Amino acid sequence: MKRSQSFVKTLREAPADEVSRSAQLLLRAGYIYKEMAGVYDFLPMGRKVLNKIIDVIREEMVALGGQEIEMSSLQPKDAWVKSGRWDDDVVDDWFKTKLHAGGELGLALTHEEAITNMLTSYISSYKDLPIYVFQFQKKFRNELRAKSGIMRTREFIMKDLYSFCADKEQHDIFYEKCAESYINIFKRLGIGDTTYRTFASGGSFSKFSDEFQTLTDAGEDIIYIDHEKNIALNEEVYNEETFKMLNIDPKKLDKQKASEVGNIFTLGTKYSEALNLYYNDEKGERKPVFMGSYGIGPARSMGVIAEKTCDDKGLCWPEEIAPYKYYLIGIGKKGVEEAEKLYDLNPEEFIFDDREKARNGEKFADAELMGIPYRVVISDKTLENNQVEIVERKTGEQELLTLDDFVRKLHKVSEK
Amino acid sequence: MKRSQSFVKTLREAPADEVSRSAQLLLRAGYIYKEMAGVYDFLPMGRKVLNKIIDVIREEMVALGGQEIEMSSLQPKDAWVKSGRWDDDVVDDWFKTKLHAGGELGLALTHEEAITNMLTSYISSYKDLPIYVFQFQKKFRNELRAKSGIMRTREFIMKDLYSFCADKEQHDIFYEKCAESYINIFKRLGIGDTTYRTFASGGSFSKFSDEFQTLTDAGEDIIYIDHEKNIALNEEVYNEETFKMLNIDPKKLDKQKASEVGNIFTLGTKYSEALNLYYNDEKGERKPVFMGSYGIGPARSMGVIAEKTCDDKGLCWPEEIAPYKYYLIGIGKKGVEEAEKLYDLNPEEFIFDDREKARNGEKFADAELMGIPYRVVISDKTLENNQVEIVERKTGEQELLTLDDFVRKLHKVSEK
Repeated sequence: MKRSQSFVKTLREAPADEVSRSAQLLLRAGYIYKEMAGVYDFLPMGRKVLNKIIDVIREEMVALGGQEIEMSSLQPKDAWVKSGRWDDDVVDDWFKTKLHAGGELGLALTHEEAITNMLTSYISSYKDLPIYVFQFQKKFRNELRAKSGIMRTREFIMKDLYSFCADKEQHDIFYEKCAESYINIFKRLGIGDTTYRTFASGGSFSKFSDEFQTLTDAGEDIIYIDHEKNIALNEEVYNEETFKMLNIDPKKLDKQKASEVGNIFTLGTKYSEALNLYYNDEKGERKPVFMGSYGIGPARSMGVIAEKTCDDKGLCWPEEIAPYKYYLIGIGKKGVEEAEKLYDLNPEEFIFDDREKARNGEKFADAELMGIPYRVVISDKTLENNQVEIVERKTGEQELLTLDDFVRKLHKVSEK
Repeated sequence: MKRSQSFVKTLREAPADEVSRSAQLLLRAGYIYKEMAGVYDFLPMGRKVLNKIIDVIREEMVALGGQEIEMSSLQPKDAWVKSGRWDDDVVDDWFKTKLHAGGELGLALTHEEAITNMLTSYISSYKDLPIYVFQFQKKFRNELRAKSGIMRTREFIMKDLYSFCADKEQHDIFYEKCAESYINIFKRLGIGDTTYRTFASGGSFSKFSDEFQTLTDAGEDIIYIDHEKNIALNEEVYNEETFKMLNIDPKKLDKQKASEVGNIFTLGTKYSEALNLYYNDEKGERKPVFMGSYGIGPARSMGVIAEKTCDDKGLCWPEEIAPYKYYLIGIGKKGVEEAEKLYDLNPEEFIFDDREKARNGEKFADAELMGIPYRVVISDKTLENNQVEIVERKTGEQELLTLDDFVRKLHKVSEK
């Protein structure tokens, strides 16, 4: 991408009402635009980061045997009445709207009801099970407050997978496989070290659910970590009963602020019974399908990663999800010419700051603000030795490479 | 894709309330699922077709210099009040909702207001122009009736591009380029022959807008075609004034039913003036940005293509957007084994109907219902001559190829 061709500009200041540090940086660096509290647009670079996160998650979901679909945002009231979740007293963050043709609709806050209903068309026998279906789809939550930037919004993209099994036994196997897959996803996204599988409150069908909590001071949750056992608990299950069940000494627990980047639930037969999703087993007996749901918020993960990796100069993306790998600056007439040539070799890897009117200082500052992993400078000076200067955003480490070596590096990347 | 691993089944019957022929077939063949009138989910194969259409459109928009973003569905009321379009008396197909924190929101029915507002952050000088920004984003329309399947829905994906130019002159150049690009898109989607650039009513800034209308009996519009001049008019501008302006003899016009698959509008300075999107020209004079908007409905296009290509046996996708190229059936023990081997060579190209319990007749019928371009059968009989039988869905033409030749064909495809 050439800066001269991008409509987005970096901004000196974020909107005054933005209190989240990561959101301030994402706004200033031109990744997102704020429509209102809790509602953001994704600008070209923000879309790129988000899509890279989505691609990682999709790959892992497909590897688990997931089949991808896309469900609607408008949801008929009927299924929610059956499951008992339509009432605002039961679910307090609904957005509802009215159909001109008559009747009320809900804006999808989740899709358990909708997908359970859908699968009554396709599941009839034990031979149809297990089934894993997922989507990346907008959810809407009518949050009273929204102060955490893209870590908690009123409209957000979510990966939700639903599992449909014959019984708890079949379910438990997939549940564990999915938990492992989540750990793998957060590793690949660069937050594996500080993301904990965390015991949280369950439902009728299991004592606990599992949250995936990433340590960050900007988090809205409190978790307690047993570092020896590598176990974490959410505050909501911080009690004698849990300590006993998990054989934990509360004195050894390390209290931390964290943000929930994923969760997995055993739903059991709650929705299948309510919405009539049954199958016939080997003996011809009619049984309710045993369900689970598995969520990850790609935009929330993006916010958490931004929050955890940023410093006082700006963002600092892990390579796997950076919008571009290199921020390219040419200095002097010859430097700019050589930079242009480099850029043409592999435009997908570079932001080329070709703005004629921008001072070099501005370009250096933008490279840091945007958090591009490597800044590459070609100047008359580096060209004296036929070199480029490469500075790693994360460490500040500087390296001089000959142009040839750098070009070789580029080709390696593009062959991958 | 292996049929045995897909959760979707073909259905004997579509929901009783579905009157659209293409929707009935898409529902029966397992491309979509109906949540309610005018609201559909996309199942794995439906998603594939939709994404192929989206990819074609995206390629062309990027070639035009478009920059892709993603805007929110929840829209603050404020901008719509400024443009005068908030009132239900002015725009009658709003879905509105309420924020728990106070205030009303609209569900995006289009994004002119939002994007004009956004660009006030980024446009200040003539040097920033022209700018072309696009997205693939959900729109919501509170239609009173919705009887045309995925050709007219209450929630749908739309490609909307907005152009921001210094003046009408700069605008007109892009407008024409975009019109050409649209023609190209519809050619690539297989409906080029019967899609007409059609004069429709304009606004304050131009006499006409342009619609792209595809002939189909299921269409909700009436257009009049002058085949000699290759000009078409929408019913709304079928009048003496238009005939005169375009030098048309109304007696030569051919009246046809059509469905609008795209449209382009000259917006002029309507939104920029209302929402304060100005720039400074070369002389430092403050001027409103001159805008245009350019829409294509990928799901509607999918519906129109389904409608136009289907026959009494089912759907019949053009190759460029078919979910898979081949529907593979093995007959007899050896036939099934060889089919399995073929499938493994390139799973992306095949639906392999490996269902053990399904009769061959069912498999043949599903291949036709799903509208996969080629049916490939390997049986003990074809294997006597080491051959596979290939039948083209569209023409019914049959061909026998040696296994080796077919494999060579496959490799060619995957190298593309």
